Order: sequence, then structure tokens, then C-alpha cells
Amino acid sequence: MGVTATYLFPSHPDQEKKAEQYALGLTVGSWTDIPHLERQQLQKNKGEVVSVEKGEEKDTVKIHYPSANFSADLPAILTTVYGKLSFFEGHELVDLTFDAELLRQFPGPRFGVKGVREKLNLYDRPLLMAIFKGVIGRDLSFFSSQLEDLLAGGIDLIKDDEILFENELTPFEKRITTAREIINRHYEHTGQRALYAVNLSGRSNELQEKAERAQELGANALLFNVHAYGLDTLQTLRENDNISLPIMAHSALSGVLAGQPGGGYSYSLLVGKLTRLTGGDFSLFPSPYGNVAIPSSDALAIGQALTEENRFEQTFSVPSAGIHPGMVPQLLKDFGSESLVINAGGGVFGHPDGPISGAQAFRAAIDASVNNVSLTEAAKTSEPLKRAIDQWGIVTTS
Amino acid sequence: MGVTATYLFPSHPDQEKKAEQYALGLTVGSWTDIPHLERQQLQKNKGEVVSVEKGEEKDTVKIHYPSANFSADLPAILTTVYGKLSFFEGHELVDLTFDAELLRQFPGPRFGVKGVREKLNLYDRPLLMAIFKGVIGRDLSFFSSQLEDLLAGGIDLIKDDEILFENELTPFEKRITTAREIINRHYEHTGQRALYAVNLSGRSNELQEKAERAQELGANALLFNVHAYGLDTLQTLRENDNISLPIMAHSALSGVLAGQPGGGYSYSLLVGKLTRLTGGDFSLFPSPYGNVAIPSSDALAIGQALTEENRFEQTFSVPSAGIHPGMVPQLLKDFGSESLVINAGGGVFGHPDGPISGAQAFRAAIDASVNNVSLTEAAKTSEPLKRAIDQWGIVTTS
Repeated sequence: MGVTATYLFPSHPDQEKKAEQYALGLTVGSWTDIPHLERQQLQKNKGEVVSVEKGEEKDTVKIHYPSANFSADLPAILTTVYGKLSFFEGHELVDLTFDAELLRQFPGPRFGVKGVREKLNLYDRPLLMAIFKGVIGRDLSFFSSQLEDLLAGGIDLIKDDEILFENELTPFEKRITTAREIINRHYEHTGQRALYAVNLSGRSNELQEKAERAQELGANALLFNVHAYGLDTLQTLRENDNISLPIMAHSALSGVLAGQPGGGYSYSLLVGKLTRLTGGDFSLFPSPYGNVAIPSSDALAIGQALTEENRFEQTFSVPSAGIHPGMVPQLLKDFGSESLVINAGGGVFGHPDGPISGAQAFRAAIDASVNNVSLTEAAKTSEPLKRAIDQWGIVTTS
Repeated sequence: MGVTATYLFPSHPDQEKKAEQYALGLTVGSWTDIPHLERQQLQKNKGEVVSVEKGEEKDTVKIHYPSANFSADLPAILTTVYGKLSFFEGHELVDLTFDAELLRQFPGPRFGVKGVREKLNLYDRPLLMAIFKGVIGRDLSFFSSQLEDLLAGGIDLIKDDEILFENELTPFEKRITTAREIINRHYEHTGQRALYAVNLSGRSNELQEKAERAQELGANALLFNVHAYGLDTLQTLRENDNISLPIMAHSALSGVLAGQPGGGYSYSLLVGKLTRLTGGDFSLFPSPYGNVAIPSSDALAIGQALTEENRFEQTFSVPSAGIHPGMVPQLLKDFGSESLVINAGGGVFGHPDGPISGAQAFRAAIDASVNNVSLTEAAKTSEPLKRAIDQWGIVTTS
């Protein structure tokens, strides 16, 4: 019982010996100078090198750490497997494999892909999300007007900008009640549901109560800058049964943790597997083809980790930043329709005919793509899509 | 009012323009296409480029972010200044300068150097700390025996290994009560005080209560893996008036955040300034000359940030890992006597004559160094020191 960490270490002729030292140093300390009787006692605490696979520049090293050594929480697990090794240059933590008993300690998403789709009553296409733009310094009428446009254009999900915090012009509680009213009205008129993810922010010790209050006020989703607080705080929000709201885990600041060349966590572990295990219903990350980009292999590996078969609900992939309608076929190809959210900011608001047309262009691109119709073909019957493609073009990376 | 972030960005011919785009993009969004009247409204929210200084490989860029845009907490501030920029390769966050009003929102250490020295009634030399070794898998008698030896050798501070978590053999509460009893007995016999920092660990939402319980049980210090939880959680512990205990902030996992070549936070910001602002009485970090090492300039900059004149108490520098008595003069030279803790693990337990002699060797090295006596000279009258120097030598890096 325990966790197996997969690392990339810089190539070394004595990698097996180094790995063995780490496996001991991070568990029972030493081994050779311990008397036989004590060794028997310590056997259940001893770290073990599972495998060492030599590579060109890096070797892949797997070390197993017994559960006896740590409590079943990520702060303890991460400190054990990477607290010290994080200081060694070029020592990357690329994966963690939890034994079944340990895995059961994690909640996974409360709703996940299945539950969110039920909330929206929407099963046959990727979801379309938009981000409020330029709300900092503006008042609630600005916020309301954006929301109305986005809904009119056919958006399913709307989120706060992750850098919108508590402020006098658009306070947290007012954003919730204002959005609730507009979304309810839209539903009464059109029968179309939508979720608005309000940015849950502030001091760590206020988050639970603030989220409970959001729920009372009629919020229907939360945005959370998980890496500004730590994954364990996401897990605590997920496990709080007074907060029954889908959580969008935003990857802000994760570039420090996972985006450093040759060091740190892998994106698939941090923004993929661990975000899903601790309860993110959505995981937002930079797409491989926008203005804030991460390598394509990383983005695809995140998508894989969020959806691969395991005991947890699936988490939506939300590749973000610089998304425009011309990217939709590629997004579907890379992330699949079922668990994909197409997340637009400038791609909606920067449309030459405004945000309603911007949203419509995305919807047209989505409808075409799920039906295997090319965007060029679809643009013939959708003026908003035609105008979007004239502006941004069509992206294909493969 | 606000915060000024100092970055190192990869050199760029249009750095001013890039910086201006960031300053706008991370605050009001855009500027040139906003009508004059609205610009006046948004002026108080607009980020400003303070300076751009060209360098060889990196340019130093300072951007000011107004307080109007974020709540006065580190998660909001860090997300604002670095949430998105962390994804851009080679974009380092090296410093944050808070305006006076914002600075007042932070508590700083509850005790700091002054308060901890009062607790120990010890003013004229660096403090000596030891780390329990190999406690994982051992029982309380092993723990007690190590503690007794360390006290007998003249140690002032004792801390848990940061990878010792809640476990059946040496449970949190038992470690506290056992240590309290031994430390009290030692005080009654010798008049010498000591602090034991128990590792405060577990789920985020249990930490406050667990720390309060520790205090009730007679704990006299806490060890905290701050980067496994986030700096804001350290601040919350510090601000809880039911927890009036010195906090040792351990830098485990900070190698991911600050140790990546050419990216991430600077150590002086993360493990220095922000650890002090949020309330660390001690900051533990890899020394520049041990087996887990960070660059000397980083270690010295941490020490500087922990002690420089400002409105907060000073934080002890605890350069760690691979420390032996032969390093003591260099440690004093690099970090000064007043705010230095000499932190030994293997350097005490690996002494050829055992841990009591190991501790005595350190004390002799400390006494010599504060009196400007060379270790070679001091070893003539201290057998433990002589034996330590025979084993490890004397380190001088400058």
C-alpha cells in the first residue's frame, strides 16, 4: 500500500545507486548500518526502487513509498515524494500512481462530465464557454450586458476572469444574484440553461463559508484558482457537502509548477490527474495553439488524464487562451467532443460584429464539426462564422 | 496604492511595448480602443510600467498593479501579477514591493528573532538546532532517547523531520507531551530552555484546530511545510490568536517554485520576504554548501530579506542540509550571529562519538566563532570538535 512516483532524473551512470539512496533517505533514512532485527521492523516503512529505465538525457526512475509513512493527504504525499528532490536540478516528477486503498481517499469530481451535462441537459456536442472581458473597473450594468449578449449568442457556460477579485463595483454576492436573475430569465424565455462560475477568492480560511454563501444565493458554479491555494483546498471544497456546485479549477500560476523546462511537475499530473482526483469538474489550461500556449503533448496528456477510465467521474478539458472559431475542428480532434469545453474570450468579444455574433460563430463551428462538415462549408450558411474565419482563419496543426 | 512586481523577462527589442501590453492585459484589458470618458473611470485600475532596464540576456521590468484590482491576500496578488505570466518561458518574478497600506495587511512573525530569543533567554550566539533522524518506523522510546541526547549535548531547538507525518508509533499528540516532559525535566536540572517544533500536517481544514490542540498540550513550537499548503495558510496560522507558538516555515517543495533555472519565483521573494510577511519565525532553506544546495547568492538574499529593516519582526535564517561543525564560521560570516540558526542532522548524529558529542562539537564551534577563535585553535581544548573536524574538515567558501 502506498504511492509510486515516476521521475525523470538527469542521466547518471550510477542511477540505480542514486535512486536507492533517495528511496531510503526519504523513508527510513539509512539501511546498511541498521541491525538485522531493526531492519525487519522497518521493512514496512522502507521505500523501494521499482525500476530504472535509462534514456538519452534523462532516466525514468520509479520509487514506491509505503502509506505507513504519510497521512492520506496530498500535502504529506507531495512533501514525501518531492519535498527534497524538488531542489535537485532537472529532477522532474512526472506521475504518481496510488494504490487502490490510497486512491479511495480522494473524492474525484462531484459532478464531472456526466453530472454537468445533466445540469445543462446537453449531450451531443462540446460545451461553449465564454469569459467576461474587461470587467475590472466596470460596474454591474457592464457585467449584466455582457452576460445577456453571451446568452443571446448561445453560450452554455460563463466564467469570471480569474483576475477579478472582491471589489466594490461588482461584489461577489451581487455578481451571483445578478447572474442568477439573468440566467433564469433566459431559461424561461428559451428553455436553455447556463452556468455562471463566480470566482471564489479571498483568504484560505474564508473560502468554505464564502462558497456556502454563494450556493445559498443561487450560484450554480464556482471558479477557483487552485494553485494559488493548493490542491488540498480544492479537495476540501469538493468534500464539503454544503457546497454542491461544479468547480472550475483554473491553472493560473501552474506555469511555475509545471511549465519549467526540465524541472517540476508534469502538467498531466498537476493539471490533469491530481486536479481530477481532488475534485475539479473542469480543468482550465492553456491550449497548445493560442497566445498563451503549452506544448501540444502536455495539453493532450492533460486531456487524457482527465478522462481515462478509473473510479472517478471524468473532468472536462478546457483548453484556453486565444481560442477562436477556426480552432474548433482541431480542438475536437485533440480532446474529443464528450469532455471538451470550448472556452472563448477575445474570440467572442473580438468578433467584428460583436459578442452575439461571436458566440453564434462558435456555435456554428461546433455544429459543423460534430457533423463532420468543414468550416469553409459551414461558413456558407452562417454569416457570423464566415466573418470570424475572415478575421482569424482556420487552424490545423495536424 | 498597490504592488510593484519586479520581473526578469528574456531580452526583447520591444520590451517596453510587451510590458505595456502585460500591464494592461492583467488589469483593464485594453486601453487604446477605450473611449476617453471610460479611460478616466478606469485610470485607477490601470496597471503601469514603472521601468524597463535592458540587460544582457534578461531585461528587468517593473509593473505596478493598483490595489483596487485585488483583495489584500496573497492568492489574489500572486494570481494577478504572475498567474498568466508564469506560463511564459523565462519570465521570472524576482520581487514584490507593497505600498505601505497593503503592507499593513500582513502580520509578520509573531515572535521573530527577538521574541524567540526571549523565550530561550539566549542573546549572545547563534541558536543550535537538531533534526530528529530516522524516526519513521520507530517508536516513542527511540524519539525520547534522541531528544535526551540532543538536550544533553546543548541543543536549543529540535524539530521533526519534515517527512514525519501522523503515524501510529509516534502520534502527533504523544510527541508533544513526551517532548514537553523531557524538555521540562531538562530545564529543571540545568536551567536551559529548549523548543521542540512538532510537524503540523494533515488536511488544510484541520490545521488550525490541530495547532490549537498542540498548544493546549504544551507544544512550544510548530514546524510547517508551508509550500505544501500555500503562504496564505501560514498567514492564517500566524493570525490565529489561539495559536501563540513560533512557526518554523520549511521550504520543502519550494525547489519547484523557486529553484528552476531561469523561471519561477526568486528564493529571496518566496522563502525570504513572503515567508517573513506571512508570519514565519524561522525560515528553513538549503544552505549554499551542503548536500542539498542552492546557489550562494540565493541563500544570502534570503537571509537579507528575512532581516532587512522594515515594520516586521525579523525571521531566523535556518540554512540546512549537510551542516557540520566545520561550517560554523562560514555560516556566521554569511548570515550573521543574531538571526542565525545552525541546523544539524547528520552533523550531530554522524559524529564518530555519537549525538551528545556531535552537539557539543557544534557548541564548541559556535563559542569559538563568536569569539573570533579559529576552529583549529578551539579543537585543541574540545575533543568533540577535534573529532568532528577530523571527520568533516573545515569549510571556507570565501
